[in-house]
Parts: sequence; structure tokens; C-alpha cells
Amino acid sequence: MINKNSPLPIYYQLEEQIKSLIEKGELKPGDVIPSEREYAEKYEISRMTVRQAINKLVNDGYLYRKKGSGTFVSEKKIEQALQGLTSFTEDMKARGMIPTSELLHFEMIPATVQIAKELQINEHSPVYEIKRIRLADGVPMALETNHISANLVKGLTEEIISQSLYQYIEEKLKLTIGEATQEIESSISSLTEANYLKVKKGAPILLIRRKTYLSDGTPLEVVQSSYRADRYKFIINMKR
Amino acid sequence: MINKNSPLPIYYQLEEQIKSLIEKGELKPGDVIPSEREYAEKYEISRMTVRQAINKLVNDGYLYRKKGSGTFVSEKKIEQALQGLTSFTEDMKARGMIPTSELLHFEMIPATVQIAKELQINEHSPVYEIKRIRLADGVPMALETNHISANLVKGLTEEIISQSLYQYIEEKLKLTIGEATQEIESSISSLTEANYLKVKKGAPILLIRRKTYLSDGTPLEVVQSSYRADRYKFIINMKR
Repeated sequence: MINKNSPLPIYYQLEEQIKSLIEKGELKPGDVIPSEREYAEKYEISRMTVRQAINKLVNDGYLYRKKGSGTFVSEKKIEQALQGLTSFTEDMKARGMIPTSELLHFEMIPATVQIAKELQINEHSPVYEIKRIRLADGVPMALETNHISANLVKGLTEEIISQSLYQYIEEKLKLTIGEATQEIESSISSLTEANYLKVKKGAPILLIRRKTYLSDGTPLEVVQSSYRADRYKFIINMKR
Repeated sequence: MINKNSPLPIYYQLEEQIKSLIEKGELKPGDVIPSEREYAEKYEISRMTVRQAINKLVNDGYLYRKKGSGTFVSEKKIEQALQGLTSFTEDMKARGMIPTSELLHFEMIPATVQIAKELQINEHSPVYEIKRIRLADGVPMALETNHISANLVKGLTEEIISQSLYQYIEEKLKLTIGEATQEIESSISSLTEANYLKVKKGAPILLIRRKTYLSDGTPLEVVQSSYRADRYKFIINMKR
């Protein structure tokens, strides 16, 4: 219902209403929603107002537009809890999805100044550079670049990476992963990111920079990931 | 240094180099950086490549463009730790910044279906709706909308809101704030958000949805905030 006497702005009421229909499952992922004209006529409001509500829902990832065919309800975002330190593979498996990766680049390179500083190793020391698209049930979720000291994590192969890296480190190398510091930023996708993630250039992404340490404090890896913001959100629980 | 024989893409090397100069303080907030043409000539690389590096740094908030005058180094982002549950006021004070708010809207309204559900109150029960711009040292950081049950938090006034809401709840009302669940998403700013936050329409924002509970589990407030992603990032520490 739109209530024109409410102090709440009309566009906000419409936005909340569509969101609520999505949450209740009355609008399902993939469903087309009514057109701007239809909403405008139904509620006797301007198309500008309808567009404002729909734009917000598109920006926030609840809806998406398909040129020439209308506006549709997005898949529900994956909610990633920022509780324990888990890998993408472990995470997706835990929610019953099939994690896969597309390896874009795997090479041993000499550490740049920046990477050496982060990993606390000497400049030009060998590091593995791994660039992957991470997929869940075949859908690209994130573009990820890892840098790992090759003197610490020995014998990495494409085969191992295609399995679980953390499992290899813990079970084969018997190293104990301790903790990680994670930075969360918001950005908009570059053309490269857009191509890999199959989103539009300029679409919002969650930028994650993670630095993982072994339990003795040695830096294990630095990871930079670009997550699709239309498919991903982070959840955290905080105590006063 | 740009190394054309490195397996690392040139734009990425330039991006890392500029980032590193910023981190070392050799490029300071407000400094203008060399033009695309200058970088291209200096390193004998294409302007396209330079633009790719600079676009990424602009998207990620390290640099900003000013029409007709060039590209500048941004202020360092505020790093908000996702550790304990703190208010914006407490947070800014803790880092030696002066928190202020610009009240856009303060009204008692009947709870919508959605808000009633979230606050576990009856539909049409009175709730305070508070819409504010939060500023740190006079710079707009976030646009925030709170909904608080008026039967729980009694006697709210503009005066109280302009101080610290959490302080009022804890010290005057003697209610114990327990914990909060926070969702972090990435979005791009609408025209309204852009105007209030003084950023460009389409600029990346961090969308925070927080639900705070009293220690007995009663929902206290739902807050939706849009943070400027060029000025803000979240940090979290995670244990394996």
C-alpha cells in the first residue's frame, strides 16, 4: 500500500513494499516486476517516483534490468558471516553450493617491494601469484589474486590449487593457520572485473583485502578479492 | 619502476607504484599526481594503460578527479574496526575527530509492516524515524536512518539526538544494550545520497544495515546507513 498522507516519502514506501514482496517470496528470483508505467498508474504516482524506487533497488542488488525485456528480481545475496576464518571452498560447501575456480594465472614471480613488505620477506624472494575466478554453482562470485611466499608454502601446483589451498597447507604441510585481518571496501567494477564477473562495468563490488597469518605470526598470504555486490553481502555480530 | 619483462600487467605495476608512494607519504592527501601524458612519456607506455591504473585507483578511492584541474590524492580512509559495538559519536571521538550530525528528519510515525516485523512490535505502533547526515570534522561521512520503538525509548527529543543516543539509552533510561547484527553491502550512490554526502552520483558507498538488541534480546533499533566508500573502510580480525 502507498499512503500519500504518510510522512515517509512515496519512493521509499514503494521501495519497502517491493522489498517486502521479495522477502515474503511473493516475488521470486527471476520474476519480472511490473513496468514503471504500471506502478505509476496503479498508485497514481509519477513515473519519476517509481524510477527512483526501482533505481535504488537495482543499485542495492535486489533487482536487475535486462535491456528490452524489463526489470527482474535478483537471486538472494549470499550471506557470508565474518565469524571464523574459512576459505571460499569451505564456505560454499558449508552452504551446499558447489565451489569451482577458473585459473587465470599461476606463476612464481619475484616479490615486489609492496608484496615483500606485506609478507615480511626479502624483495625478489619467490612468491606464487595466483589469479582465479571463484564460482558457486557455476556463477562467478569473485575475482581473487593471492600472493603466497614460495619458501613457506612449498610445491604448489595447479592441481593443488584446484582443490583446497587451506587443506593442503594444514594437512600436507602441517602448518597451523592462525588468524586473518580483513579489510572491506566498496568499489565499482573496472572493465576487466566486469568481464570476468559477468556484470556491467561500474557495477558495485565488495573489495576484500585479506592478510592471513600462521599461528606463530608469520604472514602466509595476501589476498585481494573483488566480490560481486549483487550476489554477496557480509554479516557480522558485534557485542557492546 | 615499471618492468616490461615482468609477468605482472603494466597497469597493475603502475597502480601498485602509485599506491606505494601514497602509503610511504611521498604523495600526500591533496597532492596532484602527474598527468596521463606525463606517466605515459616517463614509462614509455600507452595512455590507455595509464588510464586503466588511474581509473582503478579512483574507483577504489585512493585518488579523485577534479574537472579541469587534474587528479589528486584522497584523504586516507577511516578504518572502522568491526570489533565492539560502538556508536558513530563514540567512534569518531575515539579517533580524535569531532562528530556532528545534521538532522534532516525527526518524527514519530506508525510502524510499517516491515519495521514492525524487524522491531517485533505491532504494526502502526509508534516509532521514531530519525534521518541524519553524520559528519566527522565537518566532512559528511554517512547518511543514516534509524527506526526506534517509541514505547521502548521514551521521550526522545532533537536535543537528545544531537548528543549521543546510546548514552541517553544507557545512562538515562538505564537500558542495557546487548549486541548488534550488521550487514555490509556495496552499492552506488543515488542522486539523493550523492547530494547529501557531497559525492558524485554513482560513487561507491558501503551500505550498512544494523539491528541492535537490548541484552534481554528485545530489538532496540534498525539503522540503515550509507557510508562514503572513498572515506571509509571496515576492518575485521578473524580466527581460524
